[in-house]
Amino acid sequence: MNWKIEEKTFDVENIASEGSRFLNGNGYLGIRGAMEEYDKSQLVAINLAGIYDQVPGKWREPLNAPNGLYTFITIDGKKYALPEALPKEHEVCLDYRNGIFSRKTIFETEKGKVTIQSEHFASMENVHLIALSYKISLDFQADVEITTGIDGNVWDINGPHYETEDFQMLEGRIELVAVIQENHHQVCVMEDLSTDFHARTLIFQGKDQMLRKISFESEARKIYKIEKVITVYTSNDCNDFLRISRSTCNKEKEKGFEIIKNEHIKVWESLWEKSQIIIDSEDNAMELLNYSIYHLHCIAPRHSKSMSIPARGLSGQTYKGAVFWDTEMFMLDFYLYTEPDIARTIIKYRIDTLTGAKQKAEEYGYQGAFYAWESQEGGFDACSDYNVTDVFTMRPMRTFFRDKQVHISAAVVYGIAQYLTVTDDISILEEGGIETILECALFYESLLLKKVLSNRYEIHDVIGPDEYHERVNNNGYTNRMAKFTFEKAMEVIEKLDSLSESTIERVNKNYNIRKLKEQFHKSLENLYIPQPDKQGIIEQFDGYHKLEDVTVEIVKSRLLHEKEYWGGAYGVASHTKIIKQADVVTWLNLFPDDFDKEVMIKNWNYYEPRTEHGSSLSACMYAMLACKCGMKEKAYPFFIKSAGADYYGGGKEWAGLIYIGGTHPAAAGGAYMTAIKGFAGIYVEEDKIKANPQLPKEWKSMEFQVCHQGTWYKININGDNASVMEQPDMSEK
Amino acid sequence: MNWKIEEKTFDVENIASEGSRFLNGNGYLGIRGAMEEYDKSQLVAINLAGIYDQVPGKWREPLNAPNGLYTFITIDGKKYALPEALPKEHEVCLDYRNGIFSRKTIFETEKGKVTIQSEHFASMENVHLIALSYKISLDFQADVEITTGIDGNVWDINGPHYETEDFQMLEGRIELVAVIQENHHQVCVMEDLSTDFHARTLIFQGKDQMLRKISFESEARKIYKIEKVITVYTSNDCNDFLRISRSTCNKEKEKGFEIIKNEHIKVWESLWEKSQIIIDSEDNAMELLNYSIYHLHCIAPRHSKSMSIPARGLSGQTYKGAVFWDTEMFMLDFYLYTEPDIARTIIKYRIDTLTGAKQKAEEYGYQGAFYAWESQEGGFDACSDYNVTDVFTMRPMRTFFRDKQVHISAAVVYGIAQYLTVTDDISILEEGGIETILECALFYESLLLKKVLSNRYEIHDVIGPDEYHERVNNNGYTNRMAKFTFEKAMEVIEKLDSLSESTIERVNKNYNIRKLKEQFHKSLENLYIPQPDKQGIIEQFDGYHKLEDVTVEIVKSRLLHEKEYWGGAYGVASHTKIIKQADVVTWLNLFPDDFDKEVMIKNWNYYEPRTEHGSSLSACMYAMLACKCGMKEKAYPFFIKSAGADYYGGGKEWAGLIYIGGTHPAAAGGAYMTAIKGFAGIYVEEDKIKANPQLPKEWKSMEFQVCHQGTWYKININGDNASVMEQPDMSEK
Repeated sequence: MNWKIEEKTFDVENIASEGSRFLNGNGYLGIRGAMEEYDKSQLVAINLAGIYDQVPGKWREPLNAPNGLYTFITIDGKKYALPEALPKEHEVCLDYRNGIFSRKTIFETEKGKVTIQSEHFASMENVHLIALSYKISLDFQADVEITTGIDGNVWDINGPHYETEDFQMLEGRIELVAVIQENHHQVCVMEDLSTDFHARTLIFQGKDQMLRKISFESEARKIYKIEKVITVYTSNDCNDFLRISRSTCNKEKEKGFEIIKNEHIKVWESLWEKSQIIIDSEDNAMELLNYSIYHLHCIAPRHSKSMSIPARGLSGQTYKGAVFWDTEMFMLDFYLYTEPDIARTIIKYRIDTLTGAKQKAEEYGYQGAFYAWESQEGGFDACSDYNVTDVFTMRPMRTFFRDKQVHISAAVVYGIAQYLTVTDDISILEEGGIETILECALFYESLLLKKVLSNRYEIHDVIGPDEYHERVNNNGYTNRMAKFTFEKAMEVIEKLDSLSESTIERVNKNYNIRKLKEQFHKSLENLYIPQPDKQGIIEQFDGYHKLEDVTVEIVKSRLLHEKEYWGGAYGVASHTKIIKQADVVTWLNLFPDDFDKEVMIKNWNYYEPRTEHGSSLSACMYAMLACKCGMKEKAYPFFIKSAGADYYGGGKEWAGLIYIGGTHPAAAGGAYMTAIKGFAGIYVEEDKIKANPQLPKEWKSMEFQVCHQGTWYKININGDNASVMEQPDMSEK
Repeated sequence: MNWKIEEKTFDVENIASEGSRFLNGNGYLGIRGAMEEYDKSQLVAINLAGIYDQVPGKWREPLNAPNGLYTFITIDGKKYALPEALPKEHEVCLDYRNGIFSRKTIFETEKGKVTIQSEHFASMENVHLIALSYKISLDFQADVEITTGIDGNVWDINGPHYETEDFQMLEGRIELVAVIQENHHQVCVMEDLSTDFHARTLIFQGKDQMLRKISFESEARKIYKIEKVITVYTSNDCNDFLRISRSTCNKEKEKGFEIIKNEHIKVWESLWEKSQIIIDSEDNAMELLNYSIYHLHCIAPRHSKSMSIPARGLSGQTYKGAVFWDTEMFMLDFYLYTEPDIARTIIKYRIDTLTGAKQKAEEYGYQGAFYAWESQEGGFDACSDYNVTDVFTMRPMRTFFRDKQVHISAAVVYGIAQYLTVTDDISILEEGGIETILECALFYESLLLKKVLSNRYEIHDVIGPDEYHERVNNNGYTNRMAKFTFEKAMEVIEKLDSLSESTIERVNKNYNIRKLKEQFHKSLENLYIPQPDKQGIIEQFDGYHKLEDVTVEIVKSRLLHEKEYWGGAYGVASHTKIIKQADVVTWLNLFPDDFDKEVMIKNWNYYEPRTEHGSSLSACMYAMLACKCGMKEKAYPFFIKSAGADYYGGGKEWAGLIYIGGTHPAAAGGAYMTAIKGFAGIYVEEDKIKANPQLPKEWKSMEFQVCHQGTWYKININGDNASVMEQPDMSEK
């Protein structure tokens, strides 16, 4: 295990997917794995967390910062840059232990070889900092020009976002202040440079670039190195971002690349100390899993107290850079067990966007809080009513993710509940968690319908996790999550008296708690939860069993266009039993005590062959439920699929004509959960972590640490034996 | 006014539409307006009422009988038949006073002219009989061959339906017994012939034809005439159809064409005596209206006590020959006022198909009676879940006409209520009408939903008359019709004691009447009926006002394919305010006392520009409501459109890739209602007919008769003056 992924060939076809596979980031920004000479045609992006812009008539999406890494070379007047110039040799490496991207490329010229070697990274020590080391050597003498600066002509899916880009050269720095369209917020990128050789430098300014042209006559076999520091700030960070950028730039340039790099590595090391999972196995499971964890570290919002994580991390503008249920349901556990402060930041984001969720509920005529399906800052729902393009007519298709995928609010409550269970930090309730839970329960309350001739409460016209079946009634998962929400609301009402005076007063001022308790109790009692039929199968929604029962292969064979959407009103899956992703299985995984093991096994066996696994959220749910059913052999391929989602790539890149490529942090989080809860089998007994392992046959041993209610535990598994040791030293760190 | 429509040119393009325009029929069968030499390529059809067949995997549809009119000529060995041989002169005429189709065609040959003149009709005296007179004359000498017999190779949309066709020649008759696929019912067609000249006759039998070849040497300018009688029976009519066919054939051949024709004309005359509407106007309104009435006569099921009328009459297999709400809501009035026995037959059909409606309700998990959207015999719902083909993918589109257009059951109740109002014949209640009404009310009862946090009852997930907006909540029309159904159910419960002992006993045995009364009362009180907003506009369904507000022209300009469906999930109209047909306007027309005139006018003015009028059911609703609002000028063009639907043709012939051509009896019935209730303004006061006319400015006077509660009234309108006279003589007829 060398904690590296490498690619030793160059193929234009892989540029987009390598952007995600070799991603580097620090939670503030994500740098797609791209060569320094790439521009927007190669999907370069320095994707920024939590700042968005909307161009009129287009989708609202996060910003990509102007690219301060932009660098290419010219030898005797001829440009050598991928992908136009093909290399003789080419290596890309991501050192994911230390969070460093590097590349080595050898071009063959008429006179001889030219070698470029570079390293860059998003500093984990200072999230506003990117450092680059760029070396060039030739085995012949030549006129060399290194062009480097800031490329403001960024890749956008729904851009361009920068209304103006003002460049200046000041005290040797290139400074750029770019102003975005929607609210005139500013993005400030600066870069400064040092060289270890003498050269002439000219400054070139184009419409959206400011570049240095560093030219010199090279000696054969001498290595010429430049070091760059790049800073990225936005007007969201602070008011005096110009001053801070400049001083950071100066200070970091002073330090030099090696010191910056060492500081960066040190932070990474401290992260791994708590989060690495050591596996002795006959396959590469340890690499897949820690590579997944790497991605979760790259996108953790450490710089904020209230921020969440987009579904595609910081790998670009896919899915509008928006926060989905993925974060609470798939990623949260990792942070809870390894870095609970991040978990708190994620939960706090939802609490702080309660106002947006209440507005959305009101917009649709509901009460309470209807969280955004695609949440941006302030809880703004970026989800369009037309989220997919019809490949046959090129028309936008009316989709119902925004208005019918009502299980999102329950995911928020689930996140808070998980946070409370693992951290025991009830301050989150004091800080608005209690209102968040009550408002989500009120939302479901206002969704409840009853047939006039019946007493049971139903939820109609929703989309469950399986998005291929729209506007269904009584989706089991949704109803169960609504029930969970009522349960949690009842619990926090019970717990209210144990909270602070001011919280009790605030809550009682705003809610008629006794009435709510009665209401929620009644809803709990009457809410219809679909039950297993005679065969033990839970019908995913009313009428699912009447749909055509065909195989995924048959459904696939009916496609007329490779990119056509399987769902919607007329998709190939819509009128069949083929589902996109775990739905009933997600329910059973979250609530394994609802039914006995036999029912869980039957439903796993029933739904798995009917699941396309068209979402990266699917595999881990099947893996985890299989573990709960004692079917570790069935779980293992789904674990590998989930852990390898980004390592191997190859996920869906299109939904209709919409690009959905990028990293899959939910799959990474799902793999993590499967490993520690499924295979290692950790659980809580008398407030302490225990383990009941069932390692896959490929694995000999496993070692990792988790934090539970402030105490760190080291778990060692060897075959069927587990040891769980408290780590009092770590808890103080 | 000469009671004729004529066409004096020949154009291949018009063959399909002329089939409908020149239709002739007698309620048992409809003969499309076709030349005798036409075969299925020219959409010949002798369409049979109430007998259906289904070929596996295809739509169930009514039968077209083998064509006993099939006849063509050969001159000196060369065939002269439209459309292959183009005519020198050509005239087609439908005498709709007398129900006779005739044609005259002159072919130019190398030697001179050949003239064919023919007349045929479906006998109104004996509905199993078709008579043909066929004359040929040449202005030169030649070898002539007349080929005539039965063509069993019929036009089908979803055929072929005949599994076997057994021909025989017996006593000079050609006899055919054809057996259909689904249930082996039989169709028996016989033809016999007489000539007034000497000729050789050879019999030719092909796979699905038996033909006589009558050959002779013609003299110049002599007219050669053949007369044919054709009988059509099915095994549904009687067991000994063979014997009866033969004796009918013999008897009618004996009579000869002229006598048969006179008997036929006499029946037509008796129909016109009661139903004609005399209009003195500056335009052709009288022709349009009586031509519409002609079509209503052609399809009236006089031969049955329990049968209804398909949406496209007897003009072919369009819409599966099924009965829609068209019959009760648009056609019934005409029969009620001119031939109440037919109205009773139509109502009785629904009562007799109650079992089918109850089964359908059960199939969807509802109580009571959910009538078929496309009703065939026994109430079988022929409506497919995939009623439209996507023009872009050629895939069937999931449509919701069958399962969501729940207003159909209320239409049945509306029909019964109208029947009771106009005829006062409560025997219809005794014969099952009461159960029909109660079961329909039970159906709506089981549809009612209430939000748990609200007390009002709602109806969700329906399609209203405007089919372009699927799966909507609280469609005003639907909710209002459900309310009407509850009202009628309450009324018949009140009336129960006045019915016969046996009815009272039967109803009490099957229903807990007291409980039903309580239930229906509660539903009536709580059912939500959308109300006018501040602008006086009633929102067609929840959320309609949030849809894009564009013009019909803009929506049309977005079409990518001329035949694409405007509705469905992604149709050009679906997410706009553009509606297919009158919806709120239909409601206001049926219940003009719900709101004041100002509200009706506002809604007329609001919805009319947003209506595509893509259904022939739309125009008359706008016409009638305009009359109720005193806007006769606005009403008139819609009246003309409705009355001229078949006279002028040009209606929609395609829904997606499905052929929907044929006649439009609902438009005909709508024109009738507009004329007598709108312009003549008849109404009931103290159980007698009165009139409060508002003739269009184009009209000087108007004269017609109606039957109300067994009494005939003659209404004469002259400008603003109306006289209404009872006609005691007629009532005895």
